[in-house]
Amino acid sequence: MNLDLDHCRALDAQDPLRSLRDQFDIPADTIYLDGNSLGVMPRSAPARVAEVVTQEWGRDLIRSWNTAGWFEMPRKVGDQIAQLIGAAPGTTVATDSTSINLFKVLSAALNISARRSPGRWRILSERSNFPTDLYIAEALCKDKGWELVLVEPEEIPQALQDEKLAIVMLTHVNYRTGAMHDMTSVTKAVHDAGALMVWDLAHSAGAVPVDLTGADADFAVGCGYKYLNGGPGAPAFVWVHPRHADQCWQPLAGWWGHERPFAFTPDYQPAGGIVRYQCGTQPMISLAALECGVQTVLAVGPLGGMAALRAKSLALTDLFIQLVEARCAGQGLSLVTPREHAQRGSQVCLARAEGAYAIVQALIARGVIGDYRAGDGQHHADILRFGFTPLYLGFEDVWHAVEHLRQVLASGEWQRPEFNQQHAVT
Amino acid sequence: MNLDLDHCRALDAQDPLRSLRDQFDIPADTIYLDGNSLGVMPRSAPARVAEVVTQEWGRDLIRSWNTAGWFEMPRKVGDQIAQLIGAAPGTTVATDSTSINLFKVLSAALNISARRSPGRWRILSERSNFPTDLYIAEALCKDKGWELVLVEPEEIPQALQDEKLAIVMLTHVNYRTGAMHDMTSVTKAVHDAGALMVWDLAHSAGAVPVDLTGADADFAVGCGYKYLNGGPGAPAFVWVHPRHADQCWQPLAGWWGHERPFAFTPDYQPAGGIVRYQCGTQPMISLAALECGVQTVLAVGPLGGMAALRAKSLALTDLFIQLVEARCAGQGLSLVTPREHAQRGSQVCLARAEGAYAIVQALIARGVIGDYRAGDGQHHADILRFGFTPLYLGFEDVWHAVEHLRQVLASGEWQRPEFNQQHAVT
Repeated sequence: MNLDLDHCRALDAQDPLRSLRDQFDIPADTIYLDGNSLGVMPRSAPARVAEVVTQEWGRDLIRSWNTAGWFEMPRKVGDQIAQLIGAAPGTTVATDSTSINLFKVLSAALNISARRSPGRWRILSERSNFPTDLYIAEALCKDKGWELVLVEPEEIPQALQDEKLAIVMLTHVNYRTGAMHDMTSVTKAVHDAGALMVWDLAHSAGAVPVDLTGADADFAVGCGYKYLNGGPGAPAFVWVHPRHADQCWQPLAGWWGHERPFAFTPDYQPAGGIVRYQCGTQPMISLAALECGVQTVLAVGPLGGMAALRAKSLALTDLFIQLVEARCAGQGLSLVTPREHAQRGSQVCLARAEGAYAIVQALIARGVIGDYRAGDGQHHADILRFGFTPLYLGFEDVWHAVEHLRQVLASGEWQRPEFNQQHAVT
Repeated sequence: MNLDLDHCRALDAQDPLRSLRDQFDIPADTIYLDGNSLGVMPRSAPARVAEVVTQEWGRDLIRSWNTAGWFEMPRKVGDQIAQLIGAAPGTTVATDSTSINLFKVLSAALNISARRSPGRWRILSERSNFPTDLYIAEALCKDKGWELVLVEPEEIPQALQDEKLAIVMLTHVNYRTGAMHDMTSVTKAVHDAGALMVWDLAHSAGAVPVDLTGADADFAVGCGYKYLNGGPGAPAFVWVHPRHADQCWQPLAGWWGHERPFAFTPDYQPAGGIVRYQCGTQPMISLAALECGVQTVLAVGPLGGMAALRAKSLALTDLFIQLVEARCAGQGLSLVTPREHAQRGSQVCLARAEGAYAIVQALIARGVIGDYRAGDGQHHADILRFGFTPLYLGFEDVWHAVEHLRQVLASGEWQRPEFNQQHAVT
């Protein structure tokens, strides 16, 4: 087999998920490898959002709380997301932001742990976890007199030996490296160590198979605007294992988590189950867009489900790695993401000692959109980050993306001054 | 002067704010007296929302974080809201929900108070405050070993004598009664008592003049979807007096509150000022709709500003009260909202011992949309609640609303079975 354009086209022709691409409106001349940061717009989104704005808000006004089911939307969309993460109906809500949901579940985990194991007061995470997770945990520890311990991934087994360990908080797929934890074995090791397990599924939900119930996880949160294609700043989600859901209040005890929110009683009575993990009124327009996005992932159901999506994801990232190594050899790129399928999410990261930022900018100018993450000059190198969303990416896209990368490197195009000016925001 | 329809039409003809109504798309045959629950849709919203969805998200994708200014949106819209509440630029952000923002500022106030006055550990509020405010305070007190004290409005002066009092949390305009506190004198009394003052402006921002700076308040939160016309579940806002903003972390220490969010450092360094009161990524589509709504209120600026809006608001509510008392006399309605202008927000509530729910339903069936709030069988009667948004309501609207109310009562129409079936959500 020749690893050429014809081969890639043949792979597309055989792809059983090819039709799913028609769910999206992707700009011409764009190869979008940033769905791990902001998923593309479903074709259904503009009309659905317009309906919420002009009909539900504009015409029906306040009545839409009843007639359009606004109040139930976080639970409805939560139940849809539940199907993608191995969660039972009624255990997930789409609400607030990932950071806020993490605060809720970390606070609950801390409360539950403090009651059952008062001598444990440490939270363990990875130094390279997405920073907001670490900030939320740091602030909570500061408030409670607990300690946040940060280690490298390979140090986790040793760190689990700590008898003071109460909670382990990990992101399933690392945002920088694309490395994926084995959710089942890590959760078991954490439980064996006497701690509770909190998973962040920001780079997992809609990207890789997740079975929270099967893994016996304790708490999980995740993001709506990455692989779920929910739109910029889409509401996030939160899942709590039913064994914990009624164990305590979470501190953001707003009226949407009340047992009878419209009784307007002055005292708080938490609703049963996941409903108490709601807080205040949710942004309905953004929530409607999120539902459109979640539906694009659920559409894989009749075509083989998350297993089929995963197979294509691995085929895409395998192909990308092979092509980069074959066609960009000697250009100073090194693979950061694990080759081992079981340890890889749905993205590929390449490190380069020099010019990573400018190379990404040169690619974006060519319509190949990935992103750049700066290193820390110590543990982590500067990286080029490429996300692969199998719902809308094909094998020919991968070919062209690598060909652009090859040209940018071989020609020295990335050294042009305009590609070396830093933006405020990536 | 005869209090008749011609008089009302003459008032509309003289109304200097009449043109502001053209900013909105209000359904025909609707008199909307529920802008205190969900403001109507600005005409500008559908096109602006469509632009965010199809252009900023659909076409420009991840680049919109730079090109569309998404990251600055909470501060930009916050600065617009600031103009309506007497806040300096750079002291307000539009973000998260009212409940969550209240958690941030109550936590900060508690932290600041605990440092300067360790012997104070009580939060004072009104029993009839909007419940989510009480729930958030109750959960925080439970967590911190503090005490939440609830009193009736007239008991506040006495309650300020408490030497353990740390924080007073009040809603400026009461959601049930429409009664308004004198922000300046209450804030001064609270400070004289050695406590910090937290205001909830849910029923004030865009409805009545507010001067947080002039009143020397400490913290404030408010709602985007009522008088600011920001759309269903629009993001809320939070204001912190500059003397407090850098005093402590707030507990929802997410990456949007970090000094350098895109440096992705593992440790939290709060940004200066109000920026640290941000937490996670915000729902951009809903936030864009909120900006449209805030603009509809800012449009009163060249026409006399909030003073002119307030004058019209009082004229509308005065007229409503006069007409109800003249034309619905003997029908068992009693005025709950204060007659005194200085004590009245922009709504009027009427109590009735029987049938308040059904009367509201009968009015809604006639296109006069107010809402119902159940009493507690003790302190509070069942009420009919009517909000008056002077941006889009006219004096003729008031006439017709009262005429419908008169007919519903005089004919006994409200007693029909279909108006007595309770919905799940009001």
